Amino acid sequence: MIIVMKSGTPEPEIEQVCETMVAWGFSPEKIVGKHKVVIGLVGDTVDLDPLQIQENNSWIEQVLRVEQPFKRASRDYRHGEASEVVIETPNGPVAIGEHHPVVVVAGPCSVENEAMIIGTAQRVKAAGAKFLRGGAYKPRTSPYAFQGHGESALELLAAAREATGLGIITEVMDGADLEKIALVADVIQVGARNMQNFSLLKQVGQQDKPVLLKRGMAATIEDWLMAAEYILAAGNSQVILCERGIRTFDRQYTRNTLDLSCIPVLRQLTHLPIMIDPSHGTGWAAYVPTMAKAALAAGTDSLMIEVHPNPPKALSDGPQSLTPDQFDQLMAELAVIGNAVARWPEKAPELAGVL
Amino acid sequence: MIIVMKSGTPEPEIEQVCETMVAWGFSPEKIVGKHKVVIGLVGDTVDLDPLQIQENNSWIEQVLRVEQPFKRASRDYRHGEASEVVIETPNGPVAIGEHHPVVVVAGPCSVENEAMIIGTAQRVKAAGAKFLRGGAYKPRTSPYAFQGHGESALELLAAAREATGLGIITEVMDGADLEKIALVADVIQVGARNMQNFSLLKQVGQQDKPVLLKRGMAATIEDWLMAAEYILAAGNSQVILCERGIRTFDRQYTRNTLDLSCIPVLRQLTHLPIMIDPSHGTGWAAYVPTMAKAALAAGTDSLMIEVHPNPPKALSDGPQSLTPDQFDQLMAELAVIGNAVARWPEKAPELAGVL
Amino acid sequence: MIIVMKSGTPEPEIEQVCETMVAWGFSPEKIVGKHKVVIGLVGDTVDLDPLQIQENNSWIEQVLRVEQPFKRASRDYRHGEASEVVIETPNGPVAIGEHHPVVVVAGPCSVENEAMIIGTAQRVKAAGAKFLRGGAYKPRTSPYAFQGHGESALELLAAAREATGLGIITEVMDGADLEKIALVADVIQVGARNMQNFSLLKQVGQQDKPVLLKRGMAATIEDWLMAAEYILAAGNSQVILCERGIRTFDRQYTRNTLDLSCIPVLRQLTHLPIMIDPSHGTGWAAYVPTMAKAALAAGTDSLMIEVHPNPPKALSDGPQSLTPDQFDQLMAELAVIGNAVARWPEKAPELAGVL
Amino acid sequence: MIIVMKSGTPEPEIEQVCETMVAWGFSPEKIVGKHKVVIGLVGDTVDLDPLQIQENNSWIEQVLRVEQPFKRASRDYRHGEASEVVIETPNGPVAIGEHHPVVVVAGPCSVENEAMIIGTAQRVKAAGAKFLRGGAYKPRTSPYAFQGHGESALELLAAAREATGLGIITEVMDGADLEKIALVADVIQVGARNMQNFSLLKQVGQQDKPVLLKRGMAATIEDWLMAAEYILAAGNSQVILCERGIRTFDRQYTRNTLDLSCIPVLRQLTHLPIMIDPSHGTGWAAYVPTMAKAALAAGTDSLMIEVHPNPPKALSDGPQSLTPDQFDQLMAELAVIGNAVARWPEKAPELAGVL
Repeated sequence: MIIVMKSGTPEPEIEQVCETMVAWGFSPEKIVGKHKVVIGLVGDTVDLDPLQIQENNSWIEQVLRVEQPFKRASRDYRHGEASEVVIETPNGPVAIGEHHPVVVVAGPCSVENEAMIIGTAQRVKAAGAKFLRGGAYKPRTSPYAFQGHGESALELLAAAREATGLGIITEVMDGADLEKIALVADVIQVGARNMQNFSLLKQVGQQDKPVLLKRGMAATIEDWLMAAEYILAAGNSQVILCERGIRTFDRQYTRNTLDLSCIPVLRQLTHLPIMIDPSHGTGWAAYVPTMAKAALAAGTDSLMIEVHPNPPKALSDGPQSLTPDQFDQLMAELAVIGNAVARWPEKAPELAGVL
Repeated sequence: MIIVMKSGTPEPEIEQVCETMVAWGFSPEKIVGKHKVVIGLVGDTVDLDPLQIQENNSWIEQVLRVEQPFKRASRDYRHGEASEVVIETPNGPVAIGEHHPVVVVAGPCSVENEAMIIGTAQRVKAAGAKFLRGGAYKPRTSPYAFQGHGESALELLAAAREATGLGIITEVMDGADLEKIALVADVIQVGARNMQNFSLLKQVGQQDKPVLLKRGMAATIEDWLMAAEYILAAGNSQVILCERGIRTFDRQYTRNTLDLSCIPVLRQLTHLPIMIDPSHGTGWAAYVPTMAKAALAAGTDSLMIEVHPNPPKALSDGPQSLTPDQFDQLMAELAVIGNAVARWPEKAPELAGVL
Repeated sequence: MIIVMKSGTPEPEIEQVCETMVAWGFSPEKIVGKHKVVIGLVGDTVDLDPLQIQENNSWIEQVLRVEQPFKRASRDYRHGEASEVVIETPNGPVAIGEHHPVVVVAGPCSVENEAMIIGTAQRVKAAGAKFLRGGAYKPRTSPYAFQGHGESALELLAAAREATGLGIITEVMDGADLEKIALVADVIQVGARNMQNFSLLKQVGQQDKPVLLKRGMAATIEDWLMAAEYILAAGNSQVILCERGIRTFDRQYTRNTLDLSCIPVLRQLTHLPIMIDPSHGTGWAAYVPTMAKAALAAGTDSLMIEVHPNPPKALSDGPQSLTPDQFDQLMAELAVIGNAVARWPEKAPELAGVL
Repeated sequence: MIIVMKSGTPEPEIEQVCETMVAWGFSPEKIVGKHKVVIGLVGDTVDLDPLQIQENNSWIEQVLRVEQPFKRASRDYRHGEASEVVIETPNGPVAIGEHHPVVVVAGPCSVENEAMIIGTAQRVKAAGAKFLRGGAYKPRTSPYAFQGHGESALELLAAAREATGLGIITEVMDGADLEKIALVADVIQVGARNMQNFSLLKQVGQQDKPVLLKRGMAATIEDWLMAAEYILAAGNSQVILCERGIRTFDRQYTRNTLDLSCIPVLRQLTHLPIMIDPSHGTGWAAYVPTMAKAALAAGTDSLMIEVHPNPPKALSDGPQSLTPDQFDQLMAELAVIGNAVARWPEKAPELAGVL
């Protein structure tokens, strides 16, 4: 931590700051510059809040942090090594991480009925997906919009899991539902709107299932890693980070701006595995394949793609859903790039007539 | 709702869209333009999601909403009249609304101890505040930062309420805490980070205490009103909207950008009363008085100001807190403008030596 | 300037950085922290670019600037004193600055014809404006939109100046037009879209007329002050900063987000006088009076208000223009607040029937 | 164009609007909805400004545009076909467009001296670049930073062109320099900060050299296409669009947010070819290769990469420059993906020891 004093700060004020820092257990080292005095703090400053220091003396101009505020999420915490999240599914363990083939998650925004969810699961499995996504509890901007089928949808997800062996990823919106969701889900999703719902983060951190943490739409990368830190600090080390588009000034043609540069940035900062969701990231099915391919080339560890058997009839998010046929086509195109960059599963699944 | 067809759409596709709309219970009216055909939907389209229509036919270029998506929050819902929120406090009822004097809420970010909270309450009451703010449960970016004293802080707030007669405003972060918070709080705050925690919105909507709904840092005004709509639709009509700064590209000198233009915009769109929080809105005590005065001149119905007896020692948000003396000074400056615009309480409270 | 080395940097690398800094004329001082080494640079680092240092050694994690990058624009440059811009107009000198009454600039977006510009000038003068604004050269998003009447509009501005004695503010879009604009204008405006047109900044800096520098819509306050620095460094010290709304994620109800918190921030950073333009800042006439009052309460030194005799027939920017009657009303409302805060001209101009 | 009237608009007001529209040459068609009346305008509304209509009657709630505001830049203008820009270079014509292999532009931010620019040109040519970029006139945030060597740098670019046969891309900042730049440059660049410098756009539109139009950092895609429309409308049809990162709330780890989703969006909206600049788009060399690969997978037509022989000694933009060795490595990695997606030049250039 570096304390910058205002130019013209009287010497006794500088001494007062130094003494306070000593009292707090740090060794202050003073650098007298041409215009300003700067104080470096030596000691374990990771948990220190720059704002707390700032308040000590009105002659402090700014406090600059030198250490990152996240610990368990940092790459340094694992000495530069990537971590992987290994998820047990009926079809066997699936590992998501930098040193594994890209894992594809697919399925509808909402679980609508049994035929629909099982049919979709079979199609996406046949095309190579390892996980089925599907919402039982849906965060909707309007209280009058379809809010998800809740508990009964969880049963349908369980049926789809049994029918196909795919792992299940579904969202929790309320800690009170966590237990029943955990009975069905292989990965529990925290949605973008709850990324800083700290109560929920603590609760998913205190249970055992892996957590998919979506980036909030105005969350900086640091905010996002701090949200992951809540889960890690609560005891759950199985966290996957999912970028799904951020909010910018241009929302005319895409609903969000998919920030693919988060991939190389996260690689430097954290050991956690990365997922990209181009469906929410763009909001329009027409743009999903392009951005999925870009994410793959940029080195994502997994992809989340919305697939619906009949998008025009979808109860939610239809415009961003691919049809199963479009998804087959996308998987074929992804395989071309995935093979070129050696991140695609070795044997392409047979696109046999599962249905 | 207006459906715009792509140029060159074949006639049968247009017919298909019209037939679907008839089947959905609307009367479609077609306008054949020079390049494009446009279909207007007559009927009750308020609950309709433009995206649902969009998915019906790939020849649809866009769907334009003509009605606002919020109903109970809209100004039209009260035929253009403002609503007021009247809160019973030990000192008597306090009304917040367009036709009442500006109400000032003040107090520390976090409740720290009894002497501190009661002392602050006495000072802000003496200066003219009607409500004490103070956090028992604190949303903090870092899991390692002070998270609030929780239940014991609620007891201290109750003590401060008894000692001063001020109403209490405090934040709920988890629906499970709602009942015990409601025992103490006169107004329940939903924080910016939980503005789209829809489970929580439903829960605060199902209880009786007035709700202060802070704007999310990337929430559009429409998102914000839709969040209010969740509370209203759940049965609670006592909602106050609080602007506390939005996130923009410039975060170097202020922590957020306080969007005061929300005041005239909300006046047109909604009947709900408005509060402005310049403390979070700027993040620095030095900027709070200026922005409080601007908010008053812009017609806010209430102000929320962070006050701490000793900001350098605050457990949270110190840099944006005024001292009680600075708060006295601010109230005197506000009175000048408030009196000029006839929004200030008639009798200025005596700034007697309460402490 | 502070250089932060990555954790684990080998000693010789640190030495290399220190030696380079010595070679560049600075005295490096090293602080050995628990995890990282930090090097403070003593010397005249104002002109140094942090990026230049960063490139010297790949073990450098970051370079933190302690000094501000602007000099002549900084408040320190005038030892904490505000500057004022005094403009000679036919009606006498008008001073814009922190210690003077608020100066109001009003007029249409574009100069349309003689009757219109002279009539408007007479009305705004009668209401208390000291300057007439009016565009001869207009920056328009579309090449097919009205681009301003150019040179002939300059003649009309000269006529309005003669008829009313008001000072003239008009925009330059091309350095080649500067000379002829300077013959008519008392203040030369650089528009938001040209705020980083550095060639133009140098050119307006090399002539004598005061310059009104509008903030770019994505310009940070630092960018803006650096743009002012271009003008100051070129030799022209008469610069006024004009906030006109920044671009954010919410553009549904206002065209820009008027950042009034720039006022207290600029007061700390710079000595230059401040103008606020609520017309462009909101984009809608209905919101202009509210935001003008807020700006006044926040301490602006001047206001720019669009006024058009018949907004529905305006060739540009009609929706944000007040009618002369609305402007009269606004000036009366501003006087109430302006008098309360002692920033309004002593004698209110007579609102006599000039027309 | 669709005019939405406020609910409760009196019939005569609706009639007034319709009559005005008839007078303007349009056929208004009225749809009477449940709450609101909507008027569709039939006729050639492309050049019409929604704001102009809005101002006609205060009962108008909003005016919705159905047609795009750009014409010559629109995909429809070429009946859905892509255009290509073919540039004559000493090494032969190079086509940039959707149906051609990806073209790589490389070189330093600024032209520093002859050895440096010729050496860099030889290296990037050997690695497969077809164009050399290099700044003679540099837009710098600070007036005290290196502003480019100007005219003498143009001579060095001419020398590099002669030595290697590469085409030259360099930026114009002032219309007065255009003629001398056009003597050397094969493509003239308009930088992000001048994207809405409409005078400059008209000037580059009136000359013959192809224009590279960088997206402004707060420009929407529509703003950007309207800027291109200025050039096209002035008579120059050779325009390439270059995305270089937009400004968002998160600037901690990348200097801008590279918006790769502009690629599929632009493909639908415009026929113009696309270039991606990951160097400015991220601001850090470490992130450039990843984003270059992503852009290639997303279907860009060309890439612009900053390469400097010795980034730590660069006079500008060093931290985002690759070394020639890193560029060789990147080109090899790009070839893998480029070959997989069939957008790479057939014969890889020999990486012979040119230097």
